[in-house]
Amino acid sequence: MTDSVLAFADAQLDASVERLAALMRVPSVSTDPAYAAECRRAAEQLAAELAELGFAARVADTPGHPMVVAHHDGDGPHVLFYGHYDVQPVDPLNLWTRDPFDPWIDTRADGSKTIVGRGASDDKGQLRTFVEACRAWKETEGRLPCRVTILFEGEEESGSTSLEPFLHAHAEELKADFALICDTLMWDRDTPGITIGLRGMAAGQVTVRGPSRDLHSGLYGGAARNPIQLLAGILGEMKDADGRVTLDGFYDGVPDTDPTVLESWNKLGFDAGEFLGEIGLRVPAGEAGRTVLEQVWSRPTAEINGIWGGYTGEGFKTVIPAEAHAKVSFRLVGTQDPDQVWDAFQAHVRRRLPEDCTAEFESRGPGSFAISLASDSGPLVATQAALDAEWGKSALLGCGGSIPVVNSIRSILGMDSVMVGFALPDDNIHSPNEKYELKSFHKGIRSWVRILGALGETARARAEAVIA
Amino acid sequence: MTDSVLAFADAQLDASVERLAALMRVPSVSTDPAYAAECRRAAEQLAAELAELGFAARVADTPGHPMVVAHHDGDGPHVLFYGHYDVQPVDPLNLWTRDPFDPWIDTRADGSKTIVGRGASDDKGQLRTFVEACRAWKETEGRLPCRVTILFEGEEESGSTSLEPFLHAHAEELKADFALICDTLMWDRDTPGITIGLRGMAAGQVTVRGPSRDLHSGLYGGAARNPIQLLAGILGEMKDADGRVTLDGFYDGVPDTDPTVLESWNKLGFDAGEFLGEIGLRVPAGEAGRTVLEQVWSRPTAEINGIWGGYTGEGFKTVIPAEAHAKVSFRLVGTQDPDQVWDAFQAHVRRRLPEDCTAEFESRGPGSFAISLASDSGPLVATQAALDAEWGKSALLGCGGSIPVVNSIRSILGMDSVMVGFALPDDNIHSPNEKYELKSFHKGIRSWVRILGALGETARARAEAVIA
Repeated sequence: MTDSVLAFADAQLDASVERLAALMRVPSVSTDPAYAAECRRAAEQLAAELAELGFAARVADTPGHPMVVAHHDGDGPHVLFYGHYDVQPVDPLNLWTRDPFDPWIDTRADGSKTIVGRGASDDKGQLRTFVEACRAWKETEGRLPCRVTILFEGEEESGSTSLEPFLHAHAEELKADFALICDTLMWDRDTPGITIGLRGMAAGQVTVRGPSRDLHSGLYGGAARNPIQLLAGILGEMKDADGRVTLDGFYDGVPDTDPTVLESWNKLGFDAGEFLGEIGLRVPAGEAGRTVLEQVWSRPTAEINGIWGGYTGEGFKTVIPAEAHAKVSFRLVGTQDPDQVWDAFQAHVRRRLPEDCTAEFESRGPGSFAISLASDSGPLVATQAALDAEWGKSALLGCGGSIPVVNSIRSILGMDSVMVGFALPDDNIHSPNEKYELKSFHKGIRSWVRILGALGETARARAEAVIA
Repeated sequence: MTDSVLAFADAQLDASVERLAALMRVPSVSTDPAYAAECRRAAEQLAAELAELGFAARVADTPGHPMVVAHHDGDGPHVLFYGHYDVQPVDPLNLWTRDPFDPWIDTRADGSKTIVGRGASDDKGQLRTFVEACRAWKETEGRLPCRVTILFEGEEESGSTSLEPFLHAHAEELKADFALICDTLMWDRDTPGITIGLRGMAAGQVTVRGPSRDLHSGLYGGAARNPIQLLAGILGEMKDADGRVTLDGFYDGVPDTDPTVLESWNKLGFDAGEFLGEIGLRVPAGEAGRTVLEQVWSRPTAEINGIWGGYTGEGFKTVIPAEAHAKVSFRLVGTQDPDQVWDAFQAHVRRRLPEDCTAEFESRGPGSFAISLASDSGPLVATQAALDAEWGKSALLGCGGSIPVVNSIRSILGMDSVMVGFALPDDNIHSPNEKYELKSFHKGIRSWVRILGALGETARARAEAVIA
């Protein structure tokens, strides 16, 4: 059954590319009010197409750019597919080879082709892999293997201001069994990835204050507390010699990496030396006894993102400053609580302050919990099987391309998200000459054909098992 | 004998003040080329006055503003007196009560008087205390109790560019037994101070480098070394929990504070709580077991004067920067070697670098050794006795007002300097409404009368002892 759908997708590829190009010709730059009408035109184009495919589709207004919402019946599980039709601005325009809103096809020496233009990958090309897969199912089988709700946002590149209010207002309509999202990266050109987790975040700024004013170190040096020295010592003690974070209770709720996931990573052929070598490093800085992939994907981190205090200009000034500052952030996994981590950081600092010094903390927003998919969850297993069938292999990825909508879907709709994407790190996302591999596009469409089929099969098998 | 000299100084006070005012009316601002002729006029006025007093005096050209050099015979030891006739600029002019170059006398409610105007204290008032003392000796006794060489500089407020070349070129002419300098502070209104030491200095900048470029902490956090974390830890370990500097060999050549000096400090009525309280602190930050005065005057220090790295602007950026920077300085005492200290700092940093990170060091000039006068040195003992006779008490001070000329006199002429000054911290030096207490001026003149007498007596006593 799926074979005929795949054959249709293959035969229709040129038409699919043309439909992608048509969407890319709409300059739906969401951050610039001058393009508001173009954003709406992109939404209307998509809604019309979905309606034509048999979806109950509409353009839904928001205080910002509109959403596209579409529903289609199906026997299998109910999935919510999320994508966004808005794109980044195109400046600097002079760095583009051609008009960013008049997409073109580039052919490489090895015969591989890319489509170039704003939105080629992020996210018009990616969302279209799903739409074209739905089309292939409908045109060949007259049905979809799952019940599908589609939500296309128009403000992803400009802060998603309307997203959460919209999810709240339409929670009943949008609620499904789980979400599918196509806005992430592949592992490499030949290996698609399923992003199974988003690390959470706690972050903020600390200011340590000592003397009531800047002092001349020749007059007060030695006796007066130097806030830079104090802050350096405090932050230095935030990690131990084994790279572990020393904040009290920091590792509460941090699970060991899932063995299935770890095994999947071990098969990736990941070269830690090469990974670090590309950024000029050799020695993994994270927790001793953890692989580099664990360090970047499944272990929590503490980073100082900025530090400043005293005289930082040319030359020299023998000053003892009144205060010193740092910005810190923590990436969280498992059930680590962002509030608890931020509190532990504050306690770590306060405990080390002499009684005549103070610290002021400014949290960066409310923080977020980590989200991750269990490696044995049904949708994940089915999706991975479908990708293995299409590509010969697949990868369970860590948290490479974090996308905030996953948090909103989790907290407002109570749903997990399976993130499958076919973008590549060299797609020039947000940059001039953004492109999407036609291989990504073609096999992406085929992947979704298979994923929808596999998800439907799972449900059918379960239903038959119940009947039997 | 000294009594008649003192009586003359008392009787002449009004004339002395008028002579000070006459010098202050010459706007000898050395940093502004527009005032070059005025600088020369001040030098000529002083040379003429010294010649009139019987000195062999001349204005000696330099590539910058001229020096005044004057010699007078005497039986006692040969002293070189140093002062400077140039002054700071006067902006912002609108903050002055009156014309800064038309000095006036202010009388307080308690009857005490000050002379106000640019240079009142720094250094025209101070150098004139010495000149007026010479005048009193000459007018009453027809002689000076010491052989006196005077050197007045005209570039102290603008970098002293010509000073060291001049000292080199005229070393034979300027060499004496020791130097006297009047350009420092009193301990308080009623307690003159002899500044007995200048701490040395080693200073520079360190840059710690990790990744070859700035990284997104979401992609590399955990595995990639964060130079800020690294630098913070390294600098944090520069001091231990007892406030001691941990650099290898840092305390080599650091003597315990001279008991005589320590005893003198204990008599000062210094209130550590008040000293720290004025700058908003309570807990001495220096070495445990040392008094606050030792911490700021006689112990070596390590200070971080500036630190910066990563994102330091508004908001947040989850960056792992390629490098982090700090400016550090060390104040040295005893025979601490600035090169050795700077090397020890470099070694401290390098020893803590992972093998894939590097550090770059930029030393701030050649550094300087500390200079200090032994508490039992003859000129110091005589000077202190003279001050005690005039004021009822005196203090051996640490390194409050460091003046670079002391280093030059030491290194080029091989002489110690006894620094006696009658300025007060509230004299508004370098600021609008600079003033000098007439009490400082009057008792300053009397102090020098006594010091010259005491130094002469020391030599006479020694000579008589040899004869007997």
